[in-house]
Amino acid sequence: MRVLGVDPGLTRCGLGIVDARPGRATMVAVGVVRTPSDAEPGERLLYLEEQLTTWLERFQPERVAIERVFADVNVASVMTTAHASAIAILVAARAGLPIAFHTPTEVKAAVTGSGRADKAQVTSMVQRILGLAEPPRPADAADALALAVCHAWRGAAADRLQALATTQAGALPAISGRLSTSRAGGRS
Amino acid sequence: MRVLGVDPGLTRCGLGIVDARPGRATMVAVGVVRTPSDAEPGERLLYLEEQLTTWLERFQPERVAIERVFADVNVASVMTTAHASAIAILVAARAGLPIAFHTPTEVKAAVTGSGRADKAQVTSMVQRILGLAEPPRPADAADALALAVCHAWRGAAADRLQALATTQAGALPAISGRLSTSRAGGRS
Repeated sequence: MRVLGVDPGLTRCGLGIVDARPGRATMVAVGVVRTPSDAEPGERLLYLEEQLTTWLERFQPERVAIERVFADVNVASVMTTAHASAIAILVAARAGLPIAFHTPTEVKAAVTGSGRADKAQVTSMVQRILGLAEPPRPADAADALALAVCHAWRGAAADRLQALATTQAGALPAISGRLSTSRAGGRS
Repeated sequence: MRVLGVDPGLTRCGLGIVDARPGRATMVAVGVVRTPSDAEPGERLLYLEEQLTTWLERFQPERVAIERVFADVNVASVMTTAHASAIAILVAARAGLPIAFHTPTEVKAAVTGSGRADKAQVTSMVQRILGLAEPPRPADAADALALAVCHAWRGAAADRLQALATTQAGALPAISGRLSTSRAGGRS
């Protein structure tokens, strides 16, 4: 499953593409779309739309995971973050891709095992999970990769639970075996 | 000057088109774009984008005025409102139109003379200003018309102040005469 993770923002929008298979995830691409804060709001959104569209065309992800923005986190920046999020939703929907939202806590828990992990812990775990020789750069794109990993694992776990729910008893051992191969199985 | 006013929202997005000349404003069109709250976020944004694009093509406004969304007004709905606002900004920028933002207080003050006017007062004044036989319908689009009127008047007043600032003393009487023809002259 190839997932695009989007850490929305207008000054910086983190993008990370991950290929995930049970028990293994690899990085395909990582980057940050930046727009100057003194540019016109419309120009900033148009540029973000263009860049996101280019990423979808180039990397052909099958799903898009976007960090869920909360209104109470930071009143000053939350509106531009919400605007960037809207553009990501629009571009993904236009491409016909399934869109999911995950909270920062969900992402941290999925990647590090703790919803309270700090940024350094998330970056360190993303590096290990994706088998990178160095921490992902630009540094502010690590969250986008974490988001993609989170979504791939949670999605895979959900698919397995669905399979369990609709499976005859005779098939259970094999499915249990699959569950044990992924960390997400015990978390979702 | 033809202005599109946008009262952003995802469940209801009010749209109003007003033609404004000094001392006179007329309604060209009014409407509300509605999307069901149980639809996919992406589908809702795509539909809003399509409708806004259609309005711009059909009515050819020269400017777009969007109500400025505050993060602290209503935490529950502010994110979807911000998403709708982003789509309006994007579509207007794509069409190369100047975009302005006005707060609800600015709109109320421009239309009724009081920033604390209630919804009924705004609707009543919009009806009078635009010379409508009945209150604008749908009712929840009155704010979009008020926004368009506010922007036209404030923009006209700003243009006149600019003209005043760059004018020789000999031309002042004529410009003063123009100022007195518009209510906006005394407010901005």
